[in-house]
Amino acid sequence: MDMNELDVIKIISSNLKYSGKAVKTIGDDCAVFKLGNQYLTITTDMMFKSTHFPDILTPFQIGMRIITANVSDIAAMCAKPLGIVVSMGFDHPKKKFIVELTKGMDYMAKEYGCPVVGGDTNKSKELTLCGTAFGITNNPIYRGGKVGDDIVITNDIGRVYCALKIIEMKDNNLINKKVFENLLNEYSDIVKKLSEPRARVKEGIIINKYINSCCDISDGLGKDLYTVGNFEISSKKLLNAIPKDVIEFCDRFNLNPIDVALNSGEEFELLFTTKKYNDIKDELRKLGTKSIKIGKVIDDGHYIDNNKFKSRGYIHRWLDG
Amino acid sequence: MDMNELDVIKIISSNLKYSGKAVKTIGDDCAVFKLGNQYLTITTDMMFKSTHFPDILTPFQIGMRIITANVSDIAAMCAKPLGIVVSMGFDHPKKKFIVELTKGMDYMAKEYGCPVVGGDTNKSKELTLCGTAFGITNNPIYRGGKVGDDIVITNDIGRVYCALKIIEMKDNNLINKKVFENLLNEYSDIVKKLSEPRARVKEGIIINKYINSCCDISDGLGKDLYTVGNFEISSKKLLNAIPKDVIEFCDRFNLNPIDVALNSGEEFELLFTTKKYNDIKDELRKLGTKSIKIGKVIDDGHYIDNNKFKSRGYIHRWLDG
Repeated sequence: MDMNELDVIKIISSNLKYSGKAVKTIGDDCAVFKLGNQYLTITTDMMFKSTHFPDILTPFQIGMRIITANVSDIAAMCAKPLGIVVSMGFDHPKKKFIVELTKGMDYMAKEYGCPVVGGDTNKSKELTLCGTAFGITNNPIYRGGKVGDDIVITNDIGRVYCALKIIEMKDNNLINKKVFENLLNEYSDIVKKLSEPRARVKEGIIINKYINSCCDISDGLGKDLYTVGNFEISSKKLLNAIPKDVIEFCDRFNLNPIDVALNSGEEFELLFTTKKYNDIKDELRKLGTKSIKIGKVIDDGHYIDNNKFKSRGYIHRWLDG
Repeated sequence: MDMNELDVIKIISSNLKYSGKAVKTIGDDCAVFKLGNQYLTITTDMMFKSTHFPDILTPFQIGMRIITANVSDIAAMCAKPLGIVVSMGFDHPKKKFIVELTKGMDYMAKEYGCPVVGGDTNKSKELTLCGTAFGITNNPIYRGGKVGDDIVITNDIGRVYCALKIIEMKDNNLINKKVFENLLNEYSDIVKKLSEPRARVKEGIIINKYINSCCDISDGLGKDLYTVGNFEISSKKLLNAIPKDVIEFCDRFNLNPIDVALNSGEEFELLFTTKKYNDIKDELRKLGTKSIKIGKVIDDGHYIDNNKFKSRGYIHRWLDG
């Protein structure tokens, strides 16, 4: 029988009945506990060499990535990162690799104010990293917008999909090594969004008091949009969030930029809903962060340009042996 | 070049320079943060099918184990468990396996008052579980005893080594399947300490105010003893912590029970130091928990029966390719 990630999560959730004193368990970016007047938010993310780290990533960038992927979920709760633990499984660990990996972690940890405070090391069949980050906030922001909210995303979207497309073309021998190298150089901002993405920590903290819901764009906007509830989005507005290099790339390789934007995962931008867009826009601009309205939370249904919206984004699929 | 786990941890620690506002980072059972008047303690433990789960463990028992191994580090800080997240990597996930695995987690989580509040699921080359537990206390207990402290362990020690010996004899074809099955039945308490160990949560909370240091016995007493500092232990006293079935097993298979006790890992008993042994003894007896004095923290050196003590216990060894 075929099982996909959602089936597996469904089975797991239905058997984990005991929830103790948790305010929020499975089903949001973080689990949440109340501690005195504050809320503790916790998230975990596990990564394997063969499925999570494209070959173009340096060990330093792999280290950056495990921190960013976890901290991004803290940012999605609009909380302040407190720390992170990282467990590591190595097959044949080389000293140089471990040095670069941990330097990348430390670099990113410092940028986010989220120190790596512990971990575990093991022998494993392939490089395996599992991070668990925790944060603090007076007001955790959950998923699920209010009807009438503007739907907003930070900065831009689409570059990660394009970067993976370059790698895919090479893996399928559609381009040779020389063309591959040239494309990596030519589209350096596209490649950088894949290799060195940032979690929107400062943005999350600043917008906290203005918004009704928030998540990070990790599975792809076309899938993550469902976390706001019912929605209508406009492709014309969404185009404002697609940077010029992505438009140019799509033109050159015959891709639809709207599809690219909706299927681009691990962007780590924030997707939030608010009735105070103008306040947010100004606050975020001070950080140098763009915010783009792409639609509204509505009563019922899912629409793009008045047509029914179809879910997109990546779902892991396994064979139930 | 050969690298062992300690080399790897040394490299990692030396590169993780940023520690933010953490009270304690790498080097104890948990990392610690101060939150208001309380302390948050965090630990993580990663496990792989091929290295961590003997074949005799049922999926339910594997689920129990990932919870216990993590919660045991919270107990070692003498803190109260708050919750745990568990990331899971599956090769070919079968529904029945996942159901039993998560039921085992839920069962143990409830017993410890430590709900499983989140996780991550992935495709992986072998079953991979990574738990991160967190707890709360007003008074985290660290490693490192005070000179003159009694060194005490809870309950008993040695059974896990014997259980693994039974499995090793079968794996090396020294015994056939029938004898193997018979031994599993005959030494059921020994097998149970391997397959269903318990974290000493209640014990840790009760002894908190009486003790100067604490850790859990995970690498083997002969290695974990060094966490108290300098020590002298007595094999005669240690014999009081070795249960009759272990003594009988050692007799039958020509093993030295003291060596067995010192090399038995993942016992999850507490190893603590105190000047108030008599108070603790009574408090623990009320829980049905034995406490056994095995030696003292001293000024300088490591001794057993007035002889120099040699470190034991398991250290992972890798080849630096």
